Amino acid sequence: MTPDPDRFLADLHALRRFGAQGRGVVRPAYSEPDIAARRWLADRMEEAGLTPHVDPVGNLFGLAEGPSLLLGSHSDSQPEGGWLDGALGVIAALEVARAARAAGGPAVSVVSFQDEEGRFGVTTGSNVWAGGLPLAEADKLTDSAGTSFAEARARMAGMVTGDFIPPERFTGFIEMHIEQGPVLDDAGEAVGVVSNIVGIRDMRVTFEGQHNHAGTTPMAVRRDAFQGLCAFSERLNARLADVVTPQTVWTIGHVSLYPNASSIVPGRATFSMQWRDGEAARLARMEEIIRDTAQAVAGERGLTLSYGPMLGLEPVQMDARLQSALTEAAEALAPGRWRHIQSGALHDATNVSARLPAAMLFVPSINGISHNFDEDTAEADLVAGVKVLAEAVARLG
Amino acid sequence: MTPDPDRFLADLHALRRFGAQGRGVVRPAYSEPDIAARRWLADRMEEAGLTPHVDPVGNLFGLAEGPSLLLGSHSDSQPEGGWLDGALGVIAALEVARAARAAGGPAVSVVSFQDEEGRFGVTTGSNVWAGGLPLAEADKLTDSAGTSFAEARARMAGMVTGDFIPPERFTGFIEMHIEQGPVLDDAGEAVGVVSNIVGIRDMRVTFEGQHNHAGTTPMAVRRDAFQGLCAFSERLNARLADVVTPQTVWTIGHVSLYPNASSIVPGRATFSMQWRDGEAARLARMEEIIRDTAQAVAGERGLTLSYGPMLGLEPVQMDARLQSALTEAAEALAPGRWRHIQSGALHDATNVSARLPAAMLFVPSINGISHNFDEDTAEADLVAGVKVLAEAVARLG
Repeated sequence: MTPDPDRFLADLHALRRFGAQGRGVVRPAYSEPDIAARRWLADRMEEAGLTPHVDPVGNLFGLAEGPSLLLGSHSDSQPEGGWLDGALGVIAALEVARAARAAGGPAVSVVSFQDEEGRFGVTTGSNVWAGGLPLAEADKLTDSAGTSFAEARARMAGMVTGDFIPPERFTGFIEMHIEQGPVLDDAGEAVGVVSNIVGIRDMRVTFEGQHNHAGTTPMAVRRDAFQGLCAFSERLNARLADVVTPQTVWTIGHVSLYPNASSIVPGRATFSMQWRDGEAARLARMEEIIRDTAQAVAGERGLTLSYGPMLGLEPVQMDARLQSALTEAAEALAPGRWRHIQSGALHDATNVSARLPAAMLFVPSINGISHNFDEDTAEADLVAGVKVLAEAVARLG
Repeated sequence: MTPDPDRFLADLHALRRFGAQGRGVVRPAYSEPDIAARRWLADRMEEAGLTPHVDPVGNLFGLAEGPSLLLGSHSDSQPEGGWLDGALGVIAALEVARAARAAGGPAVSVVSFQDEEGRFGVTTGSNVWAGGLPLAEADKLTDSAGTSFAEARARMAGMVTGDFIPPERFTGFIEMHIEQGPVLDDAGEAVGVVSNIVGIRDMRVTFEGQHNHAGTTPMAVRRDAFQGLCAFSERLNARLADVVTPQTVWTIGHVSLYPNASSIVPGRATFSMQWRDGEAARLARMEEIIRDTAQAVAGERGLTLSYGPMLGLEPVQMDARLQSALTEAAEALAPGRWRHIQSGALHDATNVSARLPAAMLFVPSINGISHNFDEDTAEADLVAGVKVLAEAVARLG
């Protein structure tokens, strides 16, 4: 079975046009452009001989007859995300489904999951579909504008064609995606076969001191919450160095000070503390160090310390049989230009793996840039990726 | 001449009622409560035998006949400021003017300056009056809501009774104010005679790196602007230790990250860097260290560094003759319970000192708290302060 590179690239660029903003594709869940993009995608699926199906949360399936392998990803994006994060895996799935059908099999279904980027939750559409998140819970989630998931999905109620598709209908799931990191690009490699997806911990931390006049409060008596945060971050970096691997990451990405005025000593600093690793034990050890370091800094500086709820997703291993089909295909089509790689990003495959054998295929991100309008992949690598995916599917058929 | 403590405290609480919010007095420049408070104050001045005068920026004077000593402060407040910051000096001036008049002299005028707390600029009313800021420049200033100073002052155009009063009409200026720091309260002292007012430097600093995916960007290749800020702050604290005095202060009070999301490595950190000291030379040396440290951190971490315009006010010495009148009065009425003290906060007296002999008298802030609803001073200290002020005025007459 042979995918058509021109048809594949044409559809990829066609999807990009919906709600394009800057150089990137911005498609907030359930907005008009999102609905228009789904209509377009449903039409492509129908042309490919698949039966479009939109479930109650807006996951769009293109269903083959009988048992089939499920391919796909998501087609929403970050507010300033790039054009490939998600969309690539959906269009690659569509092309491979077409090629498989033309070749007389195996049966391939396609999916575009809803709200993977977490406008409401995190990988919301696949999480509800895979049973990890009850719909009643998901409906209570709100986006930054205060719109609830229930209100948002009501906007596309007209598109819903039926209930959730039972995961058992599918024999497995393969998601093609850009790496969103620099590893393949730095090595000049074309594809990566994902061995596992890291686990994540994310919690809000607050240091509270005393806000006061920045001119008259001597340094010695200040209880400056921002100085506490800086001391915490520097000390944490030093302490984590002993327990992490080169793949481990931790990030303070969101900071909010109160009163946040240049003439007032900050009385409160609330910040996000997020860390990711492939091993649950290391994630737990890092949590101990984070809490211990924050407690020590708070104690030394007369600050009170409090934590928000902790978001956690466990690390998952990719299915061995699907992985070997991908590695054989990669070795056949890109000999010496592929590797096994860990995914530092969350993906719908994390949720799906709870219900189905799941695997992932990466293509390079130029300069490792993602969640950014500059996100891109060389055309030759996009094509190599879809060919490896098709070859793996053929070997599984 | 003897001030009346009951009349003084009654008027102080009466002024507090205008626009009271929480425990504090919030009186944004030119709002309805501000105008009502000024009407009330103008009536009190008239009852005291003074001639009310509102100049084009809303500075409210109560004028005595002929040459006179000017006493006063401001009656606006910070959004969450306390009830004494500003209002105390205005009501103390009113009471001393009444007492002086009852005693047959010396002639005392009263002033309540506009917008001291910097809703628009910094000490805007006294700065325009003293000639430090041209009115045309002040009119271009905007508050956080985008309202221009010109638009705001137009709201109280009906109250304006004439042009700016020539500073030369007055023989000197004394401003009574709460310390806004912990020194007097910690020492159990009743009053402080201000020797000088510190100078201030304030500028916006920006570190720019690369925002990127917080899961897939290895720590080693990140250009995290927030990590740059933390490293800068910690290193700056260490380097400044060699050049500062116990009175020197420096503050990072405002921080803004971009994109400021928990799953994205911060690509930009913009923050306020403010420092204050009594000596211009030390302020300049600190600026060198701040710029040098920021440059070093930016260079090591692949960040670009940029600066906003620097706000600067020079340190000023209080007038020797007015100071000695205050010290003699303090020693006579509060022997052993007063000290010479530096002002770490800016005051209208900083501007006035450019045109007139100027001095300040402090009373304690309980626990050093100011710019906070909890700001307060013991009643006995409020009364001691107004008595010392009256005694100093008598000695100057």
